[in-house]
Amino acid sequence: MVLKVPADEMEPFLNEVFPQVKGMFGIDHLDEERLVMRLHAGEQHLRPGGTVSGPAMFSLADVAAYVATMSRIGKEALAVTTNCSIDFMRKPLAGADVIAHAQVLKLGRTLSVTDVRLFSDGQPDPVARATLTYSIPPKRVP
Amino acid sequence: MVLKVPADEMEPFLNEVFPQVKGMFGIDHLDEERLVMRLHAGEQHLRPGGTVSGPAMFSLADVAAYVATMSRIGKEALAVTTNCSIDFMRKPLAGADVIAHAQVLKLGRTLSVTDVRLFSDGQPDPVARATLTYSIPPKRVP
Amino acid sequence: MVLKVPADEMEPFLNEVFPQVKGMFGIDHLDEERLVMRLHAGEQHLRPGGTVSGPAMFSLADVAAYVATMSRIGKEALAVTTNCSIDFMRKPLAGADVIAHAQVLKLGRTLSVTDVRLFSDGQPDPVARATLTYSIPPKRVP
Amino acid sequence: MVLKVPADEMEPFLNEVFPQVKGMFGIDHLDEERLVMRLHAGEQHLRPGGTVSGPAMFSLADVAAYVATMSRIGKEALAVTTNCSIDFMRKPLAGADVIAHAQVLKLGRTLSVTDVRLFSDGQPDPVARATLTYSIPPKRVP
Repeated sequence: MVLKVPADEMEPFLNEVFPQVKGMFGIDHLDEERLVMRLHAGEQHLRPGGTVSGPAMFSLADVAAYVATMSRIGKEALAVTTNCSIDFMRKPLAGADVIAHAQVLKLGRTLSVTDVRLFSDGQPDPVARATLTYSIPPKRVP
Repeated sequence: MVLKVPADEMEPFLNEVFPQVKGMFGIDHLDEERLVMRLHAGEQHLRPGGTVSGPAMFSLADVAAYVATMSRIGKEALAVTTNCSIDFMRKPLAGADVIAHAQVLKLGRTLSVTDVRLFSDGQPDPVARATLTYSIPPKRVP
Repeated sequence: MVLKVPADEMEPFLNEVFPQVKGMFGIDHLDEERLVMRLHAGEQHLRPGGTVSGPAMFSLADVAAYVATMSRIGKEALAVTTNCSIDFMRKPLAGADVIAHAQVLKLGRTLSVTDVRLFSDGQPDPVARATLTYSIPPKRVP
Repeated sequence: MVLKVPADEMEPFLNEVFPQVKGMFGIDHLDEERLVMRLHAGEQHLRPGGTVSGPAMFSLADVAAYVATMSRIGKEALAVTTNCSIDFMRKPLAGADVIAHAQVLKLGRTLSVTDVRLFSDGQPDPVARATLTYSIPPKRVP
């Protein structure tokens, strides 16, 4: 499947759609097979002890599923998350970025389903996993 | 069930445990039956159009489940979220606070399960629902 | 909201659509506000010890969400479950029927979201809770 | 990680623990890395049209997570499912067995988390995905 939005167009699009989180996320890799994104661990995402918070991990999983879906359907800023299940499995490493590996499992006409695994940068075992469903707005007929 | 941590002790405890989100949440009501919390809709929680973001709603559901659990077991700062499922059902009202109604469905020896419904302040239909599992650390024997 | 399919039409419809589970479920109550269904605890739904199995509880939650949705949109046999999150919280009582209380939280054009709580007949604390999303097929224009 | 219960001991153990589903499931492959199980598509698991039902797919995901966990911790018949999230993504192929690929993502002292993908036998795209948490009973001190 050829991507409709390549990596170099995706970051500017994200900053335009979500100006509040500008600089929070980076795209490490995006091709037809897989997406790797990064949460730059900043002070505001940390819990006491220096580990990344649950809500920050949720944000990363959510944006990774959005980017993975957008890269396949084109820039549909209005796609919205309808469901997420997330399991927090290990304490993230203090001070490390969190890395998301995302895979689109289904791309339907009105829904996408994306699996995401989160890792502390450089660690082999996932800190969390999530599955997200996005609702894709119907195409406007011109 | 008598609460181990009443409402007036809970806010200072939250601010101590989660200093990064100080002022973000308020407790509207806490008694033996129910907990009502509020997300003060600030600029950093908004999406374009002025609606509260998914991650901010996740944060509110997560902290409400934490507070509901703590009020019953006592101040166990180390309890951690292990699982969350969340359904986003309606677009929140622009500019309105989001209100969480939380109910502890199970309080076991090692796990709690809490249901949370989220509303735009003053609206009858929920914008989201979530269920969260907290893992409760075993008591240290003194 | 007036129901499009009243209780006395629903059981024959269920038996027609799901002949394999005929006699497994009963509708205790169905009105505009709430649906109560029952799993007749039979040998094939039990685990050693006489408690109802997880898959049988999943079946009950699934069919309750289906019935609650159908009662509002009309007989759309093709509606399909797209997502379920379920928490098993207590061991069901041996030999007791399992009772589902279902509430439709959202009825959109293409999706419904229903919350279900499951109880052992006569017990106050839920044995499980579930949320189910059904995808509703678009109306055929005649 | 060396398996505590190899494949040839697992099927007799399953039949002993879950006599009601004897013959319903088979283990295609079990080693340190992965588990592949099969639901023998029988009349009682089918929906009109000949496709495997949602509850039957849930059953397969649940038993696969159980087997994957047991193979690593030993025969703990009392381990119980506490949570499952499942996404149904495609209609299963009529008449085909459903195949589960299971991977244990976390094996803690009291909880295991297992990811399962379900396929119609011979098809490349998953029909469903699930994540299951099992609660592992504490060891009895002899």
